[in-house]
Amino acid sequence: MISTGKISAAIVGVTGYEGAGAARILAQHPNFQITEVVSRSLQGSALSSALPSLASSDAGKLIICEDIQDSEIVFLAVPHGPAADLASRYRAQGRSVIDISADFRFRNPQEYERWYGRPHPAPELLPQAVYGLPEWFRQEIHKTKLTANPGCFPTGAILALAPIWRGHLIEEDIIVNSLTGISGAGRSPTLRAHFVEDAESVTAYAVNGHRHLPEMEGTLQQIAPKYSAPKITFVPHLVPMNRGILTTCYATLRDSATLADAKNALQQAYAAEPFVVLTDTPPETGWARGSNMCFIYCAVQPGSRRLIIISAIDNLMKGGAGQAVQNANIMYQLPETAGLEFVGVWP
Amino acid sequence: MISTGKISAAIVGVTGYEGAGAARILAQHPNFQITEVVSRSLQGSALSSALPSLASSDAGKLIICEDIQDSEIVFLAVPHGPAADLASRYRAQGRSVIDISADFRFRNPQEYERWYGRPHPAPELLPQAVYGLPEWFRQEIHKTKLTANPGCFPTGAILALAPIWRGHLIEEDIIVNSLTGISGAGRSPTLRAHFVEDAESVTAYAVNGHRHLPEMEGTLQQIAPKYSAPKITFVPHLVPMNRGILTTCYATLRDSATLADAKNALQQAYAAEPFVVLTDTPPETGWARGSNMCFIYCAVQPGSRRLIIISAIDNLMKGGAGQAVQNANIMYQLPETAGLEFVGVWP
Amino acid sequence: MISTGKISAAIVGVTGYEGAGAARILAQHPNFQITEVVSRSLQGSALSSALPSLASSDAGKLIICEDIQDSEIVFLAVPHGPAADLASRYRAQGRSVIDISADFRFRNPQEYERWYGRPHPAPELLPQAVYGLPEWFRQEIHKTKLTANPGCFPTGAILALAPIWRGHLIEEDIIVNSLTGISGAGRSPTLRAHFVEDAESVTAYAVNGHRHLPEMEGTLQQIAPKYSAPKITFVPHLVPMNRGILTTCYATLRDSATLADAKNALQQAYAAEPFVVLTDTPPETGWARGSNMCFIYCAVQPGSRRLIIISAIDNLMKGGAGQAVQNANIMYQLPETAGLEFVGVWP
Amino acid sequence: MISTGKISAAIVGVTGYEGAGAARILAQHPNFQITEVVSRSLQGSALSSALPSLASSDAGKLIICEDIQDSEIVFLAVPHGPAADLASRYRAQGRSVIDISADFRFRNPQEYERWYGRPHPAPELLPQAVYGLPEWFRQEIHKTKLTANPGCFPTGAILALAPIWRGHLIEEDIIVNSLTGISGAGRSPTLRAHFVEDAESVTAYAVNGHRHLPEMEGTLQQIAPKYSAPKITFVPHLVPMNRGILTTCYATLRDSATLADAKNALQQAYAAEPFVVLTDTPPETGWARGSNMCFIYCAVQPGSRRLIIISAIDNLMKGGAGQAVQNANIMYQLPETAGLEFVGVWP
Repeated sequence: MISTGKISAAIVGVTGYEGAGAARILAQHPNFQITEVVSRSLQGSALSSALPSLASSDAGKLIICEDIQDSEIVFLAVPHGPAADLASRYRAQGRSVIDISADFRFRNPQEYERWYGRPHPAPELLPQAVYGLPEWFRQEIHKTKLTANPGCFPTGAILALAPIWRGHLIEEDIIVNSLTGISGAGRSPTLRAHFVEDAESVTAYAVNGHRHLPEMEGTLQQIAPKYSAPKITFVPHLVPMNRGILTTCYATLRDSATLADAKNALQQAYAAEPFVVLTDTPPETGWARGSNMCFIYCAVQPGSRRLIIISAIDNLMKGGAGQAVQNANIMYQLPETAGLEFVGVWP
Repeated sequence: MISTGKISAAIVGVTGYEGAGAARILAQHPNFQITEVVSRSLQGSALSSALPSLASSDAGKLIICEDIQDSEIVFLAVPHGPAADLASRYRAQGRSVIDISADFRFRNPQEYERWYGRPHPAPELLPQAVYGLPEWFRQEIHKTKLTANPGCFPTGAILALAPIWRGHLIEEDIIVNSLTGISGAGRSPTLRAHFVEDAESVTAYAVNGHRHLPEMEGTLQQIAPKYSAPKITFVPHLVPMNRGILTTCYATLRDSATLADAKNALQQAYAAEPFVVLTDTPPETGWARGSNMCFIYCAVQPGSRRLIIISAIDNLMKGGAGQAVQNANIMYQLPETAGLEFVGVWP
Repeated sequence: MISTGKISAAIVGVTGYEGAGAARILAQHPNFQITEVVSRSLQGSALSSALPSLASSDAGKLIICEDIQDSEIVFLAVPHGPAADLASRYRAQGRSVIDISADFRFRNPQEYERWYGRPHPAPELLPQAVYGLPEWFRQEIHKTKLTANPGCFPTGAILALAPIWRGHLIEEDIIVNSLTGISGAGRSPTLRAHFVEDAESVTAYAVNGHRHLPEMEGTLQQIAPKYSAPKITFVPHLVPMNRGILTTCYATLRDSATLADAKNALQQAYAAEPFVVLTDTPPETGWARGSNMCFIYCAVQPGSRRLIIISAIDNLMKGGAGQAVQNANIMYQLPETAGLEFVGVWP
Repeated sequence: MISTGKISAAIVGVTGYEGAGAARILAQHPNFQITEVVSRSLQGSALSSALPSLASSDAGKLIICEDIQDSEIVFLAVPHGPAADLASRYRAQGRSVIDISADFRFRNPQEYERWYGRPHPAPELLPQAVYGLPEWFRQEIHKTKLTANPGCFPTGAILALAPIWRGHLIEEDIIVNSLTGISGAGRSPTLRAHFVEDAESVTAYAVNGHRHLPEMEGTLQQIAPKYSAPKITFVPHLVPMNRGILTTCYATLRDSATLADAKNALQQAYAAEPFVVLTDTPPETGWARGSNMCFIYCAVQPGSRRLIIISAIDNLMKGGAGQAVQNANIMYQLPETAGLEFVGVWP
């Protein structure tokens, strides 16, 4: 490892969609080098057997193992629960951890218990965990060794709403209507993820309350703590595609606020951001396919005070593994775009 | 024709998706018989050449012609504008007309001009036109010879909202967020309808105002004229599937109204309706594929006053040709389900 | 049941895709009435809970039960192995059985053992079983009480090849290249059937030998027993769609045989068949979606002796439940098209 | 341009799928710099307006213009016909040209005229044109300034067949059965490329003879000129996905040749090739999505002499723009993998 001069990185849960996404990015990263890949399945096989798209890269030759031994940074792409246990262990060993699961996204363990149905597995780590949305918490990420990678839906929603919310331009009642590709359901075979159940059909789910809802509300409140809390109604929908999240937010312009104010707020917040692009037409998720980009658009219908803000991301990139690498770059004082400069695959 | 004892029916614009949908249904209808099929393209060919799925039916043997001569009822599946011209002619000839285009959906020609960008082509016919949403205007349809078949989005939205709106259970501000399959864009080749532009991607469109918005508002107002007018924000989205519209409506419960009130209102409105089913779980558009059914679900998230109402239809059936045949049944005093009793194609 | 004057029918395995397909057809059949529906899952629930697309039909009100009690005919839509056990029991009870599984497709139990990896579960029933491809074994189906519904791939391949093979127009070496929608994999959740593994990708499978290969060879031989046996190479491919099988067969014209001879053979074989249509252009599987139709086309490339024969079916209709009902019609001396006359759902 | 030390490159036809693919790759290439982008549409707009996925790259800021002025190398991504005219002009100006169209793939202008229906537009250039399949014509590409980028289907077929054909392991009669994503039809809106015509359906096309057939035959013959010519039957199929070609080839093993011989031939031909991977299981096109890889697998069914060889590529990468850049690397003596080392986007 020393010879490359790169930072050694492990991916735990490498055969899932987020793990595979992290492998794809890190396999080509100028500053990190994948040194260990862990999965419950296919241990002892070359990574390229599990993920043939890596066949041409050096990373594809790595052997999938049961646990890590000496990587400096760990990308945790396992379900919540086990993630916290592993994070505890790895932090105790001094490694940096980026947890793509939900285990460290709430500051308050009671809120975790309420939404995830059991006591937090490692509450002692919560004080050091930072919510890894770089555009809003860059300074904190810079200093931590435990980053909680945001949920895919909250990433799309908060990036769209935060500048406008912080500018006090909209009222508390907000609707977040999201469409996600099926990879958001994870790779485990379920009836819900069966091709035939999802193709040629769309549906809403978790209509009675999705775990990403408090994450959205809590983060907006954290961004503008002095305001009264936002009240979000969030309904996610499954659409027949692999990747992508389109988030359509509806809010009411406050007092004399205008569409121009909203656009200004977005412009000011994101002008210098490498991964956020404001658009003049409604974005398509396909524009972000395979890249770490977030496209944001806003509009008001004639005669209306209702502000419509739409964002498009790739749920496995800016909504997952891409953002995880962006966070790692920040944690290691690297250029924030290192290893993430590639253009998405369109069409 | 006489020998069959059936009512002679013509389909104008038979090679489009709505025209093809009407042909499919009428080819098997116990009371109507397709006697003439008209299209600008493929004149002189057998219908089954244009629509091979009809190859096994007698209707497939009909020759596509330039205009109709002697059908009693005409299903107009052509674009707005030409539709009104044809409707004028056919009405003058004494035929019944069901217009699947938008030309007769507004009662007020000024509103038509505002949204469709030109003077109404046949304002003299507007007084006799009836908005063909049977669940709400059955009596009027019964008496007319010119039915304006509703838009696909308004059908899904009004069926979801009307009982609750009429019950005065929600406030004026309503959000209608719809997802449509690509057949809603029509069959003309456009970049927007190109497979590669739509597959593996979703997007919102017409965010600045869609023509179906005033149709939704106007119809709700017509249903409960004494209330102050609803103010709808409507955003349609394109999703990569052929058929289906999922409509997610967001409204605020008024005063002491509850979810139970909303469910009761839906139950009372639709208990006797053959084509509306209330569901206990969020509906999938796939459930309605190929049938005239509309599935409706409603919910409130814990601690919220926001009512969420979701409907699922097939845009080419209840949102188009299926509803057109339902209207024809009513116009001819036939059982309303005649020719529409078939189960949808799932999966 | 008596009051309807219909033949009582049970569907065992009703929540799978073939079972659901049978329910859809039989729910509207003029001569059969679904009286019992059986499934391992959801027992005690109404059928419409499991299959919401049936919500509007009387069949949707049936309660899913553990076993059947008094139906005259049983449609078996369960995996091979259990299917034979159930068939034994139901036959002993005097019921007619249509087995959609593979258990009774081979006449020779050794061949079954070779391809299915275990002794045949009910060899004593094999003599009474008839291979249910009506276009070729109508007389035998007419007389049996145990019909083995053909495999989906063999249906497409044999319908394409049989007339030409019987006419001795092609040599023994035949290639059958098939494309199937994912419903062919069944409804059990597997990684192979996961949406994300199949969407935006195609692959061949079972390249080293698929169980449907001997079914194709054996049936062709049965149709023309005096010829030397055909030698088929069969490679199925998974394509990202729900329904449909496209089969492209490649064979070499024998001696002086011509494309015209092949077309004549097809024409003579199928001119009177209600469910087979010969086409002048390559068929699309979408033409057959939801119907019992089989479209067949053949061609020779300029300067070549290679005959290309292409068939398109819906794997859940002519390749499954639709053909099962066609067989039931024959077994009960009903019009062969009874309950199957509906037009497919296009687009 | 000088300051970057990079080779200036123009893309003509940049708004098509191949042009966009070239832009994506070259935007990140270490040795080429896009300096000019040309398209008939959207002239005067920034490239990122036409192709929003490029929004984050410097290339996105380029203005689309009417013609090129000073680029050293030109990637021609326009239809055949116009391509030859432009190639003539650019070659006369001394620029290197990589033509992604079909205009320079045949050495013989008569063959071009036979398959493309008109005289070759620039026969005088044919002697200097080289067929740009690097794995087989690397030396020639190295020396030319006019590379004819291979067709997408021929790339998949020839890579699969060439080693085995050259090894004289198979007989002349070969079947090439290909499945392509819809981007292969180009970006022009046509009914054939309409989403609704292609989704949930598959079909064969050009069954009577596709222009890529002589390209396959001619290239195999060029690779092993002493053998009698191969006789290929080629049938392409459209499948509902954006990208990817799966090619299933069927050939008969000659004399005593074995599967092991075929595998050896593939191994020897491609062991050192950076973009070809031999697999132990049938490849999925998704493995190659967005990368320049070609996966090849071969098998023989038990008791058969029929060799099955399957290749999977991305039609817009190894089957198009990716291979074009690979060729450019060779023409400019760069490392052949320069700018092409990225891993594909899976899933």
